[in-house]
Parts: sequence; C-alpha cells; structure tokens
Amino acid sequence: MGVRNFGMGFAAGVVVGGAASFLFAVKRRPEARPAGLVVAPQGKGNDTSAFRYHPALKYGAPSNHNLKFYTGFVAAFDPRTRNPVWVLEHLSSKKEWEEGVDRKNSEFYEDKDIEERFRNRLVDFRGSGYDRGHLAPAANHKDSQKAMDETFVLSNISPQVGKGFNRDYWARFEKYVRDLTKSSSAVWVITGPVWLPQKLKGGHWQMNYPMIGQPPTLVSVPTHFYKVVLAESKDKPGNCMVGAFVMPNAAIPPDTPLTRFVVPIEDLECAAGVQFFPGYISSARRNALDTAAIDWRQYGMQLAKPTGPKLLPEGDSISASSHESSPPVVDGEKPASLVKQPSKTGPGGQGAIHLCENGGCTLPAEEWWIKGPKVG
Amino acid sequence: MGVRNFGMGFAAGVVVGGAASFLFAVKRRPEARPAGLVVAPQGKGNDTSAFRYHPALKYGAPSNHNLKFYTGFVAAFDPRTRNPVWVLEHLSSKKEWEEGVDRKNSEFYEDKDIEERFRNRLVDFRGSGYDRGHLAPAANHKDSQKAMDETFVLSNISPQVGKGFNRDYWARFEKYVRDLTKSSSAVWVITGPVWLPQKLKGGHWQMNYPMIGQPPTLVSVPTHFYKVVLAESKDKPGNCMVGAFVMPNAAIPPDTPLTRFVVPIEDLECAAGVQFFPGYISSARRNALDTAAIDWRQYGMQLAKPTGPKLLPEGDSISASSHESSPPVVDGEKPASLVKQPSKTGPGGQGAIHLCENGGCTLPAEEWWIKGPKVG
Repeated sequence: MGVRNFGMGFAAGVVVGGAASFLFAVKRRPEARPAGLVVAPQGKGNDTSAFRYHPALKYGAPSNHNLKFYTGFVAAFDPRTRNPVWVLEHLSSKKEWEEGVDRKNSEFYEDKDIEERFRNRLVDFRGSGYDRGHLAPAANHKDSQKAMDETFVLSNISPQVGKGFNRDYWARFEKYVRDLTKSSSAVWVITGPVWLPQKLKGGHWQMNYPMIGQPPTLVSVPTHFYKVVLAESKDKPGNCMVGAFVMPNAAIPPDTPLTRFVVPIEDLECAAGVQFFPGYISSARRNALDTAAIDWRQYGMQLAKPTGPKLLPEGDSISASSHESSPPVVDGEKPASLVKQPSKTGPGGQGAIHLCENGGCTLPAEEWWIKGPKVG
Repeated sequence: MGVRNFGMGFAAGVVVGGAASFLFAVKRRPEARPAGLVVAPQGKGNDTSAFRYHPALKYGAPSNHNLKFYTGFVAAFDPRTRNPVWVLEHLSSKKEWEEGVDRKNSEFYEDKDIEERFRNRLVDFRGSGYDRGHLAPAANHKDSQKAMDETFVLSNISPQVGKGFNRDYWARFEKYVRDLTKSSSAVWVITGPVWLPQKLKGGHWQMNYPMIGQPPTLVSVPTHFYKVVLAESKDKPGNCMVGAFVMPNAAIPPDTPLTRFVVPIEDLECAAGVQFFPGYISSARRNALDTAAIDWRQYGMQLAKPTGPKLLPEGDSISASSHESSPPVVDGEKPASLVKQPSKTGPGGQGAIHLCENGGCTLPAEEWWIKGPKVG
C-alpha cells in the first residue's frame, strides 16, 4: 500500500458489510389514510411480496421521504431541510435537442405533490439574497420544453449564492459535465446539497448555517454543493470514469482549478449520508477511485492561488478526513511543470478510472460562449 | 374563529392537499447490486405492482434511508445526522412483563445492518460528554430480555445531555408516557431528535449545533427531542388522546410543568420534516388538537418559574411560529388558581382530544420510586 492510501485516513479502514441495507426502492402506499395496518417489508431474501406486520404501525409510519420522477431526472426531497437530498440525471449526446426550447419560456413553480408545509416555496426565496439554484441544470434538458420546464420545479432547487457561484463558477462546472457527453457514450450525474461543520478551537466540531423563509417552514441554506459524475467509456463497455466534487456555496475565484474540489467518494458519502451509484461503485472501485482522488485534490491545491479566499472552511470535515495522515500539502501556486502529475487509478478500479484522467478536469472558459483560454 | 386559532400563526393557513404524497411504505430491493435497472413506483392509483423505468436509475438510486424493525419498536435511521429520524413504539398494559428482565443484562451495540461508515458507533460517544440516550426507553420493553436488549441498539440512540435531562426530567417524561397505558387501552408514541435554529439580531435564522466523533463520520447532537403520543380511549373506540412535546437537549429544572413543553403538532411536523400518525391525524383533527395545544402551552408558560433558565432558545422557531399573533404571554409563575384553565379540544377533533385533558399532563415525582409529591 503506497503513501497515498494513507490519505484515505480513518474512513477507508472501516468499510465492512454489503451495501444491501442501504438499497431500497420506495413503494407508494395505495391508500392515503389506511383504516387498518401499514404493511412493511421483511427486508430479507428475494421475496419482496412478503410483507411484515408490526403493531406499532397501526396509525401509519411517520414517513418523511419523497421520490420524484421527471422527464430528465429523478429527485429525492427532504422535508426537513426543504432541499433536494439528491437529483440524478442521465445525459447523452444521443438525445435529440428540440429547436426553440428556451429557458425564457420556463418559470419556477412549487411542487404541488408535496404538502405546502413540507415543500420549499417561491416566497421563501424572495428577498433572501440567494438564487433559486438548479441542481439538474436547465441547459441539460433541451430535448423538449417540457423536460426543461420540469427543471424549474422547486424540488430541483436549493438556495445558492448567485454572484461568483451559481451564475459563474458553478455554471461552468455544469457546462463541463454536460460536455462530457461528447467524450463518453453517456453520463450519469448526481447533484446535491451538503452541510459541512467547522472545527472549533479545542478540536470540537460545530455545524452552522443560515435558514431562509419563515418558521416553522424554514429552508436550510447548504454550506456546500456536490456532484458525483459517472461517464461510460465510448470504447470499452463496462468501463466508467467517475469523479466527485464538493464546492462551497460561495463566490469562487474564476481561475481556481476544478481539481481543487475533487474529493474522495467515501468522504462525501459519509458527509451527505448518501451512497452513490451503488449499482457500479463497489468497495474495491471506491477504494481505487478515492486513492486517485486524493492525488488529484492535492494536485489542485498545489495549483490553486494562495491569495484567494479559503475555498473550504478551516478544518472542514471533508478536507480534514481526506488528508489525515497525508504528507503536508503546500497550498500555494506552483508552475504546473513543477507539480507532480497524479498517478493513474489502480487496477482495483476494475474498469473504473478517475474522471480527471479524462482530460484533467479542465473547466470551460469563464464566458465559454466567447472563444477564450481554458482554465486548468 | 376564536383568538386561539390565530395562535397557529402562519402555519395553519398553508395546509392544502392530501397527505398522500408523504405516505410511503419502503420496499427493499431484492438484489444488492442490480446488473440492470432499478424499479420504482409510478406513485399513482392503487396498482402498486406497476413499476416505472427511468434511465437515470441505471446505476442505482442513491438511497439514504433505512427502516428498522425490532420486537418493541420500528425505527427510521438517518445516515447523514447518524441519529434515528424517529422511533415508533406500541405500548399496552396487556403485554405481560417477564420476570427477571433487567437492563443490567443489556449492553449497547452497533447496528451491523448499517454499513459502519453510515451508522453511529460506540466510539463516537466515548468521551463526548453526552449520554447514549434511548429514544424507545428500555423500561418500556420488559416483556422479554430480547425486547429490552434491542432498545440498546445504537439505531435507537441519540446523544443526550445526561444530568438534568436524560437521567432526570426526560426519564420522568418517559415514565409519564408509560403510565398512560393504565388509563388508556393502548399507547403509540413517536420519539425523535429535532434541530431548531435560533433567531439572530436582524431577524435572520441560524442553525447551530455540535457534532461528536471524528470526520467524516460525525454524529449530530440534536438541539431538542420530541415525543408525539397517541393514547386510545378505554371507553370510546376510535377516540384518542394526542399530544406533542418538544424539550431542549439540556438540563431542565425539575419543577418545570410538562405543559410548558406542549407544542402544536403541525409546527413540530414542519420542523422535523415528519408527518405523525397519518392514519389518524387528519387536517381537521390536527387543527383542533393544535388549538388546544397552544392553550396548554400558554398555561404551562404561566405556571413556569421565571427564575429558571430559558427552556427554549430565544426566538426559537417553534415558539416563534406558534405564538405569532398570539396575545402576549407573561412568562412567570402564577398561583395555579389565577391561571386560566385551557379549553377543551373542539368538535373538529372528531373524537381526538388533547392528551393534557387526561389528567393535565402531570409528571411523576422526581424520584418516583420513592413516594413523593407530584409535579404539575
């Protein structure tokens, strides 16, 4: 095991057991208010028609989840934070884009399928100072006006800092993901909010974030946003390029390299409480990808300008964990020629390689609709 | 509409639509890592065998929920906060208690069904300064040693302040709920953690709470805990007594009346993102119960000693919302004879009455195993 593996720190050592207990498909109960008992799965074996009785469930389960299906994406909504938990898109260059589809024809709208007291609402964002930030971007869904319109449902929206983030760096990041459809046969991308705590003097961890709207229906403002990208190889069926990124919900200097935001999948999974692409990312693949991710992250940190603002808060829980036991990182700009190139994903990836091996995770130019230099 | 109805404030005005979209039964997927597609429900009509295809789901849904079945309770676990979302118990005086069942025979244990990186762990609590607080109390499950042992699974445990809370006021509250089985035919109780923000100067809301353990697998420390109690009437089938309570995760002066912690169900639902007893609590019932709850809460606040510490933080989001537009409350001790008795639950309750109408929500004595005066 090389030095890089220690960069996984504590987290890598504790993965045991299968993913089975986290893999659920949600089934809607046929009756809104059952007169009798709620059925629930036994959770063992392959016989999913077997249901289980529990006397505690007589007056229903206190459900708090919501799986939403749209033309271009699937979303899970959290009625506690009033944000999406995650939004999952399938992008393909094979999708035909309809002429005349334009976001000017779309309007933000509330998700009427969620009771008003549990959904995020238009009024929550008004005067809040935050943008209504798309998680599945409108520009990914030009195959029909309906598909684009659906990205404006508030179940796809989180409060995002506008200037320097949603309208700038984050938009370029979205464009980068969209462009991956050119170099791969298809792309799956999971986007979500995440709340990361800060380390206090004395070593304790503290969560701290604003909420918008009015009580008791406040909307949590995420401290960070993530994307986990899975791009299928054009040449080798079964091979995929995978990368995870976490950015602060804050203005980001435009010349910051995207590799600065690479994170190990496992650390992000632990922070978000979500398992990504369980149908592809096995423990072995995650391990190989995360070893590469730590390399790419350090590469990005070495390229980043030291004069910029702190991009992840001091003692941020993801950077703290992923760099535990790592060699010290000099967080300052170096000529790219002096910075050690990250190694390739190891054979443990079983066909999975880190996304940044595919062109180095190069963002499009700041104003990509005008021809200009690329940001590394 | 009486003055009391205004006490519901903003929240009551916005309830529209049915509960249907929040009522899910969770169905376990038969294969851990599907080679093919994930099935998901159409979510419409009564045909639950109809599943729906979405190309975004090729590599699985990023599941993040976990429904757990135990002898005495059902629990939902949140891998993001690493706390239970809720724990639901069914209590009955008809259950026979086995001799020799003792918590001295039980040990706390980790939930091995949850991957180690997503569960809360014994090591997270060590040296944290917090108790491993049961949500389903051990003493509710003396029908067998197995049932009691299962309450020690960490999926039933949240970090609780020990002195003055878990070992004192909260324990008496648990005893109060347990004793309800004597005056009703059966009791259902939902217990959970909740995180409430504080109001900053300038009117903005801010969430702030500590986390224990090590990143990236930190465990959130709840700011508050709740119980929602549903007790079936002995005399009138279909009639139920219902009450919701929220307490700070902090030492509580032992002479604080329990009514001080009564909250409207709806405000708690909005803050927790959970709908309680959807099989019984209709909008009409919730409205009637919550009108009574505001009365009981004000009654408790008038009885509470003004010298004690603030029991809910200044500008707490639940008290802020439930007292919006309410007549001003004098938060000071008054002789009980001078305090206006709360009104009875209105006919909109359709057989549901507020729990405090059943004996006034009187806590057992501080050391209830010794005979002593009761706390009102």
